[in-house]
This record gives sequence, C-alpha cells and structure tokens, in this order.
Amino acid sequence: MQLSKRLAAELFGTFWLVLGGCGSAVLAANFAGPVHGLGIGFVGVSLAFGLTVLTMAYAIGHISGCHLNPAVSVGLTVAGRFPARDLVPYIVAQVIGAVLGAAVLALIASGKPGFELVASGFASNGYGERSPGHYSLAAAFVGEAVMTGFFLFVILGATDKRAPAGFAPIAIGLCLTLIHLVSIPVTNTSVNPARSTGPALFVGGAAVDQLWLFWIAPIIGAVIAGVLYPLVAESRDANARKLALD
Amino acid sequence: MQLSKRLAAELFGTFWLVLGGCGSAVLAANFAGPVHGLGIGFVGVSLAFGLTVLTMAYAIGHISGCHLNPAVSVGLTVAGRFPARDLVPYIVAQVIGAVLGAAVLALIASGKPGFELVASGFASNGYGERSPGHYSLAAAFVGEAVMTGFFLFVILGATDKRAPAGFAPIAIGLCLTLIHLVSIPVTNTSVNPARSTGPALFVGGAAVDQLWLFWIAPIIGAVIAGVLYPLVAESRDANARKLALD
Amino acid sequence: MQLSKRLAAELFGTFWLVLGGCGSAVLAANFAGPVHGLGIGFVGVSLAFGLTVLTMAYAIGHISGCHLNPAVSVGLTVAGRFPARDLVPYIVAQVIGAVLGAAVLALIASGKPGFELVASGFASNGYGERSPGHYSLAAAFVGEAVMTGFFLFVILGATDKRAPAGFAPIAIGLCLTLIHLVSIPVTNTSVNPARSTGPALFVGGAAVDQLWLFWIAPIIGAVIAGVLYPLVAESRDANARKLALD
Amino acid sequence: MQLSKRLAAELFGTFWLVLGGCGSAVLAANFAGPVHGLGIGFVGVSLAFGLTVLTMAYAIGHISGCHLNPAVSVGLTVAGRFPARDLVPYIVAQVIGAVLGAAVLALIASGKPGFELVASGFASNGYGERSPGHYSLAAAFVGEAVMTGFFLFVILGATDKRAPAGFAPIAIGLCLTLIHLVSIPVTNTSVNPARSTGPALFVGGAAVDQLWLFWIAPIIGAVIAGVLYPLVAESRDANARKLALD
Repeated sequence: MQLSKRLAAELFGTFWLVLGGCGSAVLAANFAGPVHGLGIGFVGVSLAFGLTVLTMAYAIGHISGCHLNPAVSVGLTVAGRFPARDLVPYIVAQVIGAVLGAAVLALIASGKPGFELVASGFASNGYGERSPGHYSLAAAFVGEAVMTGFFLFVILGATDKRAPAGFAPIAIGLCLTLIHLVSIPVTNTSVNPARSTGPALFVGGAAVDQLWLFWIAPIIGAVIAGVLYPLVAESRDANARKLALD
Repeated sequence: MQLSKRLAAELFGTFWLVLGGCGSAVLAANFAGPVHGLGIGFVGVSLAFGLTVLTMAYAIGHISGCHLNPAVSVGLTVAGRFPARDLVPYIVAQVIGAVLGAAVLALIASGKPGFELVASGFASNGYGERSPGHYSLAAAFVGEAVMTGFFLFVILGATDKRAPAGFAPIAIGLCLTLIHLVSIPVTNTSVNPARSTGPALFVGGAAVDQLWLFWIAPIIGAVIAGVLYPLVAESRDANARKLALD
Repeated sequence: MQLSKRLAAELFGTFWLVLGGCGSAVLAANFAGPVHGLGIGFVGVSLAFGLTVLTMAYAIGHISGCHLNPAVSVGLTVAGRFPARDLVPYIVAQVIGAVLGAAVLALIASGKPGFELVASGFASNGYGERSPGHYSLAAAFVGEAVMTGFFLFVILGATDKRAPAGFAPIAIGLCLTLIHLVSIPVTNTSVNPARSTGPALFVGGAAVDQLWLFWIAPIIGAVIAGVLYPLVAESRDANARKLALD
Repeated sequence: MQLSKRLAAELFGTFWLVLGGCGSAVLAANFAGPVHGLGIGFVGVSLAFGLTVLTMAYAIGHISGCHLNPAVSVGLTVAGRFPARDLVPYIVAQVIGAVLGAAVLALIASGKPGFELVASGFASNGYGERSPGHYSLAAAFVGEAVMTGFFLFVILGATDKRAPAGFAPIAIGLCLTLIHLVSIPVTNTSVNPARSTGPALFVGGAAVDQLWLFWIAPIIGAVIAGVLYPLVAESRDANARKLALD
C-alpha cells in the first residue's frame, strides 16, 4: 500500500479516536436526568476510547496497521515490527488527525448554550492541579509509562503470529478501555501523545505546559515494552506478523 | 436470495433496532432504586442500540446484508457494494419495520400507569429545544453527518475482503454503541433516518417537523464516506466483499 | 454424546444462569458507596445475564448445545433443529438446574445480616404490582413473547450454517443482555421459564401465582420464531447447523 | 517454550491483573462529578478485572497459557491439562507478579493528596466485617468456592478442542467480569489467591488474617471443577487442547 494512503488512514483513525473518545468525555460524561444522572461517567468514556480503536482496527488495520498513536508507532519500531523510515510521517499524520478531530469536537460542543471550552477542560490531560484527582507529577508519570508499556505488550502479543488471527482489534481496543477504567482519575488518561496534543492546543495555557509529560512518559513505556516483549516471547522479527503493510 | 426474503429480513431487523434501542431509552433509561438510581442511563442505551445491530448482523447478515438503515444502504450503493435497483425497496422495508417497532414499543410502554407518550419524547431525535442538551441545529447537523460518515467508513472497512472474516458485526455494532456514547446529548442520536421516523410519527408535531435533518444529514455523511473509503483503501468493487447477497 | 452427559451440562448451565444472572440482581444491583452508588444497576444485571449464556455457550455448546431455557428448546424443536424426543428431558434438567442455582443463591444471600428473601423479591419475575415499573399483564405478556421471539430469531440466525462459525455465543449472549436492557422494568425480564421458576419457588405466594405467564408467553414467542425464521431464511433442516449433538 | 520465559509471562500477566483490576477499584470506583457521580462503580471494576485476563490471554496465551491464578493452575493440573511439575513455579511467579503489581499501584495511589492505603482497604478481599456487604464467613466461603468452580468449568470448556478456536480469551475474561458483577459485595471477589495476596500484604492486619480463605476456597472450587468437567464432557487428556506450551 502506498504511504500516502496509509497516512490518510492514520489521519482518519486518529481523528476518530479524538472525536469519539474525547467527544464522549466532553459531551456526555455529565448529564442530569429526571430520576438520576444519565451521563456516561468514566465507564462510558473508557468504553468509548476503546471502541474508537476496536472499530478502526477492523476498518483500517489492513491499510495502515491502525496505530493512531505515536507511542504505538515508536514501540512497534523498537520491537522490529515497523520500518523506522515511516515513523515520522506516521506521527505527523496522527497529530494532524488529532487536531482536526478536536476541532470538529469544538465545533459541535460549542453548539450547546453556555459551553465554555477552556473551563470545561475539553478532555485535556494533566497532572497536579490539572489531574482529575489531583495526582502528583510522579504518580502521573509512572501511571502513563506503565499503562503505555502494558498497552504495547498487549499489542505486540495479540498481533504475534502465534496469537489467534483476527482477534487483535478486540484485545487492543478493550485494553485501551481497561487502561481508562484505571487511570482517568490520575491524568484523564493519555497513553497517546497525539490524543493529548489535540485538545491541549485548543485549551492552551497550562494544558500546553504539561504536554511534555504526555509525550515523554508514554514513549518511555512503549520503548521498554518494545524491548521486553521479544525477550519474553522469543519471537524474531521475521516471525512476527507485521502490523504495517508496506 | 429472493428480494422478498431479503426485504422481510430488513423489516424484522429494523423493527428490532427500534424496539431494542428506542425501547431501552423509553422503558429503562430512568429508574429509581432503594439505594441509588438503577436505570441504564446513556451507557445502557448506547449498548442497546449497538447490540441490536450486532445481534441482527449475525442473524440476518447472510440473508439481506443487515443494513437496517437507509443511510447505510445509500452509502453502500455509492461505494459500489450494493445494487442501486434494490435501494428503494430496502429503504421502504426499513421504514416499515421502524414504524412497526415503534408501534409495539408504544403498546408495551402504555402498560405503565401514567405513561405519556408525547411528553416522554418517546426516544425521538431533535435539535434546538428538542435536543437533550439543547444543541443548535448546526451542531446537530454536523454531528449527525460526521458520525454517520465514520459509521459507513467502519462498515466499508470491516466488510472489506482484506479485513478478518466474521468480525464485522462486532465492529459495526460496537461502532453504533460508540456513536451513541458520544452524541445522545446532541440529537438523541439518529445516524439512521428509519430509526428517526418510527418514533417521530407517534410523537407528531415538532418531532415530525425536525425529521428532515435526520434524513439529510446522515445521508450526506454516508455519501461522503462511500466516496472516500474506496479512495483511501484502493479497493475495487470487484475486490470488496459484497454485503448483499443477490 | 450420551443424553445423560448432555442433561448434566444443561443442568450446570442453567444453574449458572440463575446463580449469575439472578445473583447479580439480588447481591449487587443496589449498593451504596462513600461518594455515590456503587451497585451495578440494571446495566450490570443485563450484562451478567448475557455473560452467563456467553460463557456457558463456549463451555458446553459442544456438549449439549447450551439451551439453558425451555423456550429455546421448544423453539429449536419447532424449527427442526432439535429432536422432539429430547425436549422433555432437557426441560426437566433446566428446571432442576435453575432451582439448585436459586438454592445456592439463597444460601449466599442469607449470609448478609438483615437479608429478607421474600421482601427482596429475590429476582423473581412479575406483572402488575409485582412488575418493577408496575406494567400491566398485557404489556408483560406482549413484552415477554416479543422479546423471546426475537431471541429465538437471533439464535436460529446466528447458528445458521451460513453465519460465521464460532461467533454464535457472542451474538446470543449479548442478545440476552440487550433484552434485559430493555425489559427489566416491565417484568424483571424472564424470556426463560426455568429462570423464572427457580426464584419463584423460594419466594412463593404471588410469585408462584404469576409463574404461568413466564412459561406461556416465552414459549409462544419461541414457537412463532421457530416457524418464521425458516420461512425468511429459506434454510432447510438439512442445511441448518445442528445445535445439539446427538 | 523454556520455563523461564513462561514464568516471566505469568509474572507480567498477574502484575497486570492486580494493577488493572485492583487499580480500577482503588483509583476509580468512587469519583464525584459536577452533575452526578463519575466513578466506575462495581460495573467498571468488574469490567476491568475481566479485561485484564482477556487482554493478557491474547498477549501471552501462546507463551504460558495465561493462568495468572494459582487456583487456575491447580484446576488445570487436576483436569490433566497442565504438568504437575510446573505447578509450584507457576504459583510462585503469579504471587510475585501480584505483589509487584500491588506495589506499583500503591506508588500511584499515594500520589493523591490524603490517600490512606490501609483505611481505603486497598482492594483487599475479606469476610465478616471486612466484606463490603458484611457477608458471613460461610457465605464468603461458599461464594468463592462456587464461583471459582464455575470459572474453571468455563476455562476447561472454552479451551476444549471441540470449542471454537480463538474465542477462549473472550469467554474466560468475560467470565471473570460476570463473577465480579455477582460477588464483589460478598468478598470483594477473589477467586484468585495471588490477587488476594498482593493487596493484603500492603494492608496487613486483618487482611492477612483472612487470607487463608482466599487460598483454600478458590482451590477447593477449582479441584472440584477439574474433576467434574472431564466427567461431563467425556474428554480425554489426549483430546483436550493444552493451555500450556511446554
């Protein structure tokens, strides 16, 4: 498949991840009802993020490998599953998709009377005062690195040629759901630098100041998993099913 | 398969989509309990809509392709996956199924003392004053078009012959769940003109007046995706697995 | 497979359906927490019922076909997928399993200080005053019949030899989840005479008096679906994948 | 596969089970919101536990069999699916993984101002005063034994060579979700001695005093299932698909 098609797929997919995942948080997490709260809460947001990946992995897995996440692309490169020459173009496409997804989300969200984008947080990630549960920088860093590490471990394992074929999108998508179920209170959950960048650019200020953590911690976790999985699994590059079609 | 059998399957399936999806909203979204609210909220309604499609796609996918949605039929036609000559019969069957599903739901819902169909909204879609979160017409239009566009993109990708076989109903059903997790507050979520038409005919008044948006916006989104997916995926008509058996 | 082994599997499976499904309702639906309610509500109960069937269908589908439900056995017989001579033994095994499952649930539930089995309702089904939302007998009857009919339609479709192999337990289990998401407020959801019988025998009184509806309505729905599916799908007995191994 | 690699996989996997499952309970079960509670409650915790197993089973099932649980290893040994000589090393690796997972969770959780590990319960299991719903020792024992028994029954059935290939991680992971949906109020749900040991060591005191039950009851249930399944299923050791690759 031509690189341009693969980049278009990554752009669309990351657009969908931000519109669907962050959109569920911004539009639907809180909602009053006549009898009790109707909003989807952290369970619904966790499900939404996971389903953006599950759905896109079935839709474009055969086109681009459906990374949708710079940390995933880096981890796959370290593990020898993705060609290093495509790394930068993939990351650029992912970030553009995330920013465009956030833009469309801003457009829709602004259609509600009284919506204030910056005050809402707009699903941006953060630590300290900007963490939903006011978790410290250290807790946020450890959380993002460890969660991303296990995410990559699951991705590398579920796409191993010895794993059952066809099920990887379920394992990977629901792994992202699991990660959100655990860590939304800590950092609002990133494990994805592109997903963090999209909303942060619209919120500005402290959201942008804290963005460094959501690039560095996930990528460190991903690199460690990219080194570790092959050691545990004894898989060789040639043995591993390639995620990318090039 | 004869057209009459396929139309019967579409009618049953769309009946199930409205009875199950709208039914969960009308009957179970709000429910008080002895300790806390027991109702299923927007998470449960989102799950219900997605599961109507997941279950029917396994049940009748091999009969009619399980569109259950005029926008899906249009998008598949544009993408060259569905014969244009069957488009109108499919849409008619879907709308009839949706109206009958809404009729049975009205019958069951009326068995509760004090139920008022019109005042309840009866799971109809709407914008402005009729939007659950009072979102504007513009936000509603963009939301419905974009969500339906991605829905078709996922449908076209997950049923591509290069995608893993057998998993499409999971990807497509859970994509509808995801779409509801995001957009119930905006329009009560349609992305399906037949689903909108069923309840609106029972509610009447403003619900019918606003019905045009839930035909036009989803179909625009579906047409765009039907053009776009083949461009990104480079699939040819002959390469794509046909959803319809004709 | 010998009939005795198949009956043991049906007994275990229906035990699990009642212990898991009714157990989630009795033990976990309502639960206060330090910040907000922690109980699983109708969403969790719906998920639990569906997962009892999904898990058992993978565990014993290859032994007994995993009916776990007299209405399912009847519907499969009408559709020509199950031998009539095994119908009564299957139903007896299912009812015994349901009663034993309810007995173990009663044992566990009674370990909570202050638990009152009869006052709790013990997850029994009901209409009128015994319906969670006080739905009328007519609404309860229509709801149970229609829901069971679609349940059988999905079972017959998803196990059709033309449907993707291996996915039927997902479609069927999640169909039961969907049915609960819609209809718990109406009848506490039965669609399964054995499941209704287990708890009712422990509650006694009006729960037993109303049991007739939860035998008759589901079986009527199942019979209609058993007649209808083959007409729509044009499948012959010889074409349909047999659920039962005999 | 060498034993050392398989033990590393079990260690990582059980780490993930405790970090993900207990982490969701400690960090995210309770969370206030501007409109209503946003925390994931017992539904979210149930989903998280199940997804740790589902994701790891796809990631390392081909390496170690993905037991992650001493009771599972014992039950598989009894059923003739796992070599007895590997039992102790597996259990040691699982317990080490669980303790390390609890350690990382303690590190992250302590990043929240005012967090008190012991007072929080730290997702430890318990009966009597330490049961979430104050269930008695007898109820806790029966609950843990029966739930673990059915868990093993589903594991043995879903990995039987006659069950559809590739789906076992879905059945097994969602079975753990189901078990939590039912029994969190009773014991905070263990069915896994390693999962119980990790948090208990950090809480100390009564949590450690009660630990015996969460080793004995699950293992009794697992042994019974390990004897029972082959009797019902008539499978021979040679017929059963081996979970472990040795």
